This record gives sequence, structure tokens and C-alpha cells, in this order.
Amino acid sequence: MAASTLSPPEVPMELHAHNRDKLLRALRDHLAASSRPTRGFVLLQGGEEQTRYCTDHAELFRFLPSFAPSGICGSTVVFFYGFWLIDLFVSMAAIPDVASGKSFLFVPRLPADYAVWLGEIKPLSFFKERYMVDLVFYVDELVVVLHDHSSEPGKPLLFLLYGLNTDSNNFSKPAAIEEINKFDTDLSTLHPILTECRVIKSKMELDLIQYANDVSSEAHIEVMRRIRSGMKEYQLESIFLHHIYMYGGCRHCSYTCICATGENSAVLHYGHAAAPNDRVNGKFTKDQIVIYNAVLAAHNAVLQSMRPGVCWIDMHELAEKTILKSLKNEGIVIGDIDKMMERRLGAVFMPHGLGHFLGIDTHDPGGYAQGLERPKEPGLKALRTIRELKESMMFPRYEALSGVVFNLLIFLVFVPLNEQQFTFPSTPYTGKVEAMVITVEPGCYFIDAMLVPAMEDAVTSKFLNKKEIEKYKKFGGVRIESDVVVTADGCKNLTNCPRETWEIEAVMAGAPWPLDHARFKSQNGASGA
Amino acid sequence: MAASTLSPPEVPMELHAHNRDKLLRALRDHLAASSRPTRGFVLLQGGEEQTRYCTDHAELFRFLPSFAPSGICGSTVVFFYGFWLIDLFVSMAAIPDVASGKSFLFVPRLPADYAVWLGEIKPLSFFKERYMVDLVFYVDELVVVLHDHSSEPGKPLLFLLYGLNTDSNNFSKPAAIEEINKFDTDLSTLHPILTECRVIKSKMELDLIQYANDVSSEAHIEVMRRIRSGMKEYQLESIFLHHIYMYGGCRHCSYTCICATGENSAVLHYGHAAAPNDRVNGKFTKDQIVIYNAVLAAHNAVLQSMRPGVCWIDMHELAEKTILKSLKNEGIVIGDIDKMMERRLGAVFMPHGLGHFLGIDTHDPGGYAQGLERPKEPGLKALRTIRELKESMMFPRYEALSGVVFNLLIFLVFVPLNEQQFTFPSTPYTGKVEAMVITVEPGCYFIDAMLVPAMEDAVTSKFLNKKEIEKYKKFGGVRIESDVVVTADGCKNLTNCPRETWEIEAVMAGAPWPLDHARFKSQNGASGA
Repeated sequence: MAASTLSPPEVPMELHAHNRDKLLRALRDHLAASSRPTRGFVLLQGGEEQTRYCTDHAELFRFLPSFAPSGICGSTVVFFYGFWLIDLFVSMAAIPDVASGKSFLFVPRLPADYAVWLGEIKPLSFFKERYMVDLVFYVDELVVVLHDHSSEPGKPLLFLLYGLNTDSNNFSKPAAIEEINKFDTDLSTLHPILTECRVIKSKMELDLIQYANDVSSEAHIEVMRRIRSGMKEYQLESIFLHHIYMYGGCRHCSYTCICATGENSAVLHYGHAAAPNDRVNGKFTKDQIVIYNAVLAAHNAVLQSMRPGVCWIDMHELAEKTILKSLKNEGIVIGDIDKMMERRLGAVFMPHGLGHFLGIDTHDPGGYAQGLERPKEPGLKALRTIRELKESMMFPRYEALSGVVFNLLIFLVFVPLNEQQFTFPSTPYTGKVEAMVITVEPGCYFIDAMLVPAMEDAVTSKFLNKKEIEKYKKFGGVRIESDVVVTADGCKNLTNCPRETWEIEAVMAGAPWPLDHARFKSQNGASGA
Repeated sequence: MAASTLSPPEVPMELHAHNRDKLLRALRDHLAASSRPTRGFVLLQGGEEQTRYCTDHAELFRFLPSFAPSGICGSTVVFFYGFWLIDLFVSMAAIPDVASGKSFLFVPRLPADYAVWLGEIKPLSFFKERYMVDLVFYVDELVVVLHDHSSEPGKPLLFLLYGLNTDSNNFSKPAAIEEINKFDTDLSTLHPILTECRVIKSKMELDLIQYANDVSSEAHIEVMRRIRSGMKEYQLESIFLHHIYMYGGCRHCSYTCICATGENSAVLHYGHAAAPNDRVNGKFTKDQIVIYNAVLAAHNAVLQSMRPGVCWIDMHELAEKTILKSLKNEGIVIGDIDKMMERRLGAVFMPHGLGHFLGIDTHDPGGYAQGLERPKEPGLKALRTIRELKESMMFPRYEALSGVVFNLLIFLVFVPLNEQQFTFPSTPYTGKVEAMVITVEPGCYFIDAMLVPAMEDAVTSKFLNKKEIEKYKKFGGVRIESDVVVTADGCKNLTNCPRETWEIEAVMAGAPWPLDHARFKSQNGASGA
């Protein structure tokens, strides 16, 4: 077995209890602020099992990402093995009662032959204990149970999740139950509140996102070390997937691997052609160093500038500007940088946004909170968020009230939901425990579909040195991604990969990571960023 | 890189042209036999891209299995890397014209920024050549093109695919096009004919299914060799998936791996618990040998009896009977075997069917052709087919007409569709070139949910030796699967794995496969099945 430092953690159930609690608190706060009564149930559906078209081939089950606050599913970009109870929860719904704070879980009543094909049928008490909920029933009891537990006469109110995902432009589907006519329903309140809860990650979530980054960093290094000339790109994908599963326990990967070599690397979401890759030799060419370092400088400039209060559009423009400066130094672009920025020249080389929120979804939601409009300018229109960076700014009222750092314990004091079941780690959390997580992934590409129109345009063509750009025609592109958590006085990079060109060359040549920097620097005469 | 004998083949486009042709021929034959005019278009949709719930996470695209005859997608249990053009074909439809035999392909008109994110936009001529079709248009031209090419006045007729999948009990969705009111539609004719086409595999398909078996056999052996005490079951899945992708080029696996150890192996479609497996030592216990050899004897008995004309129910019962005999020899069951068979005791130990058709789907369709009813008895009701085994019996009329073995060249003579583009291998196909492929996968399990009711039942309890069965309470179970092609005088096993217990122990101890049998037999004193 290859060496690995990984050890898959358990996802603590407290994480979910905390999220459920946070959602309840935000919802109650919103209702109070709008002078609405504190009543109703939050109804979230677990997910739907998908089969491939009309066949009986079942895809690996995934919970609805928005189900996280229910306390039943994970909250990180990876999903830890053994955590899911596949099939069992397909129709499951979790319902916190806004008035009492009690949580209800509804599980399917399974047929007897389930035990033959899919394993032991667990009793209701198993779920109560496993998922730290107050009450467990079967799905077919949902209508009766909620009427019995409703605190007011008349139809109980259900808060259903319905709203726009600004990355996909799709709308979420509200939980589907029979006899919905026996309830009052509210389709507009829950979605913005739950989405905002997801923007700010708890300490327990940050720990898991750090683990996901550790897994991912190690797998990237494994790929670097095992690349050989003549391999196909899909083999790099296979090495990556195997490493995160075999050693990291990650059965799912956050997105389909982008393993592009040569000119394929200019296709932003490359789909893995079968062309053999025979251009890999573990050494950067002079041109590759130029473009790689332009992107690295942008990456480093952003990380040095990120802190609460900074606007993400400014970070995007900082990355663009840094790249344009490097390109100008090499004579690839010509003229005044500020004028280039005005004309959005940066978008020709980096047509995508600088980064996106990261969490249980790769493109975690909340990038455009209500009232924020997507920019229309080239490059900026591709931004998945234009928000101001924050640490925990979710509940300013409670921060003010408490007079201390907003943390888990404060939640507990205010909403003693299920208190006796909480088993917090014996080491108390210290410092800021909630924060935004966002990716920083500048890139620089030579894409015909961008460059040809830019060279034909009367204004942008003046900035472009056609002769130099011609040399990069089949160059491809470079993108460098770090996953970053916003801290009180800056940011922390969760990703731990070789970044300098000489570091990458050393690892590809077989050196262990982290490098013995003192030794390598003296050998290579290179300097860090 | 670990040693592997694998080399991913290209899927020949002739395979698809052949399938398209076969479908056309069968449809014309059916129309003629029902005194209906030879007119209309067969409209098949390529597939639908799936995203995860409301997010922009796109699942790896798969074509509709029934799209195979269109000539655009593969026809084996694995999908070869680089064959799919993901995204491009999401809305694509392929239409053979029943009257002229001409094939039409409709591809989406892609937006310009597709080139930036997903790669080069190919011209229509690319698809014509790549997929060996007669005419290529954009999807938005479909209505006009089909009206222009219709051979008769009035609304053109569309044959749409709509029918029951007898494994899933789901119905296929007919191709969705706008302005369907501009066509006459036929929802009942196509499905049984296309399904029947899929039951019989061509020589080119058999070659690919053999390759899929080679990949799978090698990956099983790799898992055997790398199992160590203390591993988790998901690590075995990871080794398997990595081997088929890294060396076999298979990006998809036919189904979610069932890597069950110990008592988990009694769960037929086990879902991979996170419990560490510490019972693996590479040596069979005495009890394990008893049950394993009972199943192996059933497996071998079926393979020795399979041939055209044999009914699959008889094969299932042969497997049951063979297992019961072994169990009787060990004193686990008591009494008269024929009486046990009458009382369906075999189903207590093997609650699933003996096997299923295999092809582009794991459970390939056609198991219950029109008119066949699913049995109701225990065990038999789980059978995915009850058909008689056949070689190529699809088109007896043409067989009789041609007077020679039904093969690809005959197709060419009768339906010279796109003739000049066919590039058949220089070595002509010989012998029977079409056949059924079916799995043979008997099993024997000790499942509480089956045994407890059987021991409480007045009739079945008499056959069961409770004391002996108690010893197997946490035993789990054994299933042995081979994928088999029906030949003129018997069958051919496509699977090549260690089968005898001593072979398995030798491979797990590190011996290369195939074994040097002479050496191992003399060392082990064991005899083959």
C-alpha cells in the first residue's frame, strides 16, 4: 500500500444538530423581524433515488445538499464512506418545528424482502439515536403526526424549500408529500435563509473541508509523481479517484476531474479526450514558466489581499490586473494597464470568475444573495459571487446581544434543543468558529474563441501583440486553485500542494512533499513567491 | 505501473451501422407481415443530461441504452473511454427512414461560448463521417427536414420508443420533440422489435463483451491479490474501479460494486458498510469450502447443460437441485430432494434468479418477450427471464431465404445502406455470428429473513436441520457469476477467473493467473470440477 497520511474522520452528528439549530434560529429571527408568529414546520426532503432512464440501474444515492440542516447528511465537498444509508432515506423528510424546536424524522416503511436484497431493516429507535433527532416516524404517518404536533388550530404551516440556484439557474423542488392540501405552505421564506446559513461554515464543517483539502492535495501530488510520458489523460483521473477513495475514504469526487494536457488545458471544463498525452516530461518549458508564474502571482496577490470587508469583484480585478502586468512584461500585451482594465481585456485571457463558495456543493450557493445583480461586463458576468467577504456575520443581532464572539456555545444557550444529547469535544472551540470558504482560482488561457474576436475588435486589438500571441496558439492554459477560509485578519489557505515551478518539478521527479526547502532552494537557486 | 494484458479497443462504427440495419430489417419485416405500408421514421432520442438536484453539478452523461441501434452509442456493458462526446448529444435524435433506409442525425446547435468552456464546436460533416450516417442536421431543423424527406403526403409517421422494462417495471420515455402534433405517432410497434434486436448480439458486440469480461476478470484477480486483513470493503471497490479504468479504459462500471465480506455477503445487493473487514486471510475455512463448492457445482452443472433449445427455468431448477444435493450431503437439509423442489426449498437458500441477459445494460432487456408471464412461485418469481436459449433466431425468414448462416454480409446485400462507408475487417466473420449472452450466477446464502420463516413453516421446516443451520448463522453467502454466450452446441464462458478453492487460495497468495495447473495440482493434490 502506498504511503498516505490520510485517515477518514467520522462526520460528527453535532455538526448537523448545530446546523439545524442555526437554521431554526435564523428563521425565528426572520419571523420576529417581520412580525409573523413563531409557528410552522420546516419540511426538507432527503433526496430522490435516480435510476438510469427506464432501467433498474440505480445511481449512487446522494442527499439533497439543502438537507444538511436536517442533521441527516454531511456538509462538506466530499462524502465520507459509510455515512450514507443508501436507499433507506429516499423518501425521508426531516422537520424541525419552528415553535418547539423539536426535530422530527420520517423514514420509509420498508418491505420485508428489503432485508434479503439490501440488508437489515433498522428500528425507528436506531435513527433517533444515530441522527440525534427528537422524534422518528414512518413517512406514511407524516400528515397525522404533524397535525397532532401542531401548536395551533387549523392547518399546520409548512416552510418548503423553493428558490433559484444562481449557479445552475435551476429552481429547487419543494418537498413532495401527498395530501399537501391539508397544510398551509410557505414557498418564499425558507430558501434565502437556508442558503445564507450555508454561506457561513461552522468549525466542525471547516475541519471536514480541511480534510477534503488534505485528501485532494495528496491525490494531486500522487498524480504528479506518477505521470509518465505516453499515458492518457483518463489514467490521471483514475489515479486521482483511486487515491481519494482507497486512502481518503471518499466515494464521491466533488466534480468530474479536469485532467487536460497541452492545448486541451485551454478548455475550461475539459471533457477528457482519448488522445494520448505524449507531451509530459516533468519539466516546464520557458513559455510555460512565463504563463504559470503570471497566474501564480495573481493567486498570491489575491491571498495577500483577502480579508473581511473586501469585495470579491475587487479580488477578481486584482487577479486580472496582475496577469496583464505579467503579460505586458513579456510583450504579449501592449499599452496602459488601466486602459486594458477599462476595456475588460483581462477577460480575454481569463473568461471565468476568480472563485466560488465551496461546501457540500462544489459551487456552494449564496453567491448572489437577494438584491445582488449579476454584472454584465465580460469576465465579471462569469463571477459566481460578487459579495463582500465576511467571517461570521450571519446573526449580527446575536453577536451584539452576546457581546462575545459568536460561537457554538452561544447557540446552545439560546436554543437548548435536545441539549442532553450534545456531546461536544472536550476541547472547547476557540476564536472565530464560523467563516466563509471560497476558492481562489485565477487562470490564463490562449483560447481561439476568445483571441480571434479580440484581435478583430478595433479597440482590444490595439493591446494585443499578434506576433507574440501567435507563438502561444497551441499553448493551452494554466489555472491554479486554492481553497481558502476567510479569517478575522486575512485568510487561511486550506490547500497544500507544490506551487512554485521548481517545487512541482521536484515532486514530479520523485521528491517527497513537503520538500526540504532549504536543500532544494540551494540546489535550484530559485526563490519562493 | 502494474502488469496488465489489457488494451482498450475502439468500438467499430460498423457495429452501430449493423444494429441500425438489423432494426430496420426487423421493422420492415413486421410491417410487411401485418400488411402495413413501409413508411415512417424511427425516432430515438440520444439521452438527457442530468444535474444533481437543482445544482449545476452535471453527472457523467450516458446515452439511452436503446439508442444503440442509431449508431451513435456503444453496445457493451462497459463504455470505452473517449467514445462519448459528452454534452454534445444531449438533445440529439437519430432517425432511420423506414422507407429509404437512410439515417438522419440531429445534433444541437451549440452557443459560441461552448468552445471556451467545453471545447471545439465540430461541423456537421464531422458527425456524418464519425457516425456513418447519411444526413446530419441541427435539432431545430427536425420538423422541417422530416417533412421534406417524407415519402408520402400528409403527416409523416414517427415510430417512438415506449414500453415496459421488465427488470425495473419502468416505462421508457418516447423521444420528446416540440411540434409533435405535426406528426402521426406510433407508440406500440417499435419497443418489442428493438428489445428483441438487443437480445441477440452480433459478432462485433460479442467481441466487446468478451473484452469487458477480460477487464472484469483481471480486476477481480487484482482485488484477490491485494486483499489484506484489516482493509475496508470500500478499498476493494476502489482497487476494482481503478484497475478497470487505469488499464481497461472503462470510465463506467456496469453496476455499483458488491464487495461484501463475512455475514455481509448474505445481503444480495450489499451496500458497503464501513465496518472494517478483519476476517480476510486468503484461506477457506472448512464450512466455506462446503458452501462454495455447492455453488460451484451448480455453476458447472448449468454450464454443462446450456445449449439452444434449453429453457432457462430448467437451468434455474438444475442449479437449485445441485445446491440442495450438496446441502443434503452435509446434513444441512434432510429428506427427498424432489419433494424439496416441489416445496420450492431452493429459494430459501437462493432467493434470486439464476441469471439475466447481459449487454449495454447490466440487466439487458427482453427477458419477458411479449406473451411471457412471470412465474409466481418463490425463487422462480425472481427470474429476470424464463426464455428458451437461442443462438440467432431473430430472422428465420431471412435465414431460410439466404440458405446460409445469417451474418453481416447478408445484411449488406439486402440493405445496402451507406455501403461505401463500410470498412469490414479483412478477416471475414465465420460461423454463427449472433447469439444470446446471459449470466450464470447461482448462490447459496444463510439469510435470517429467509430461514426464520422457513423454519416456522410446517412444511419447509421438516427439510431443515436446525442444529446444522444454526452453525451457519453469521456465515453469509456465496455467489459465483460467469457471463456466458450460447453457441450452436452448448455455450462459451467469457469469464476467466480462478474458480476452484485451491486456485483462489493460490492467486491470493500471489501466484500469477492463469496458474501453472500441473505444478499446483501436484502440490495441492486437488482435482478440478
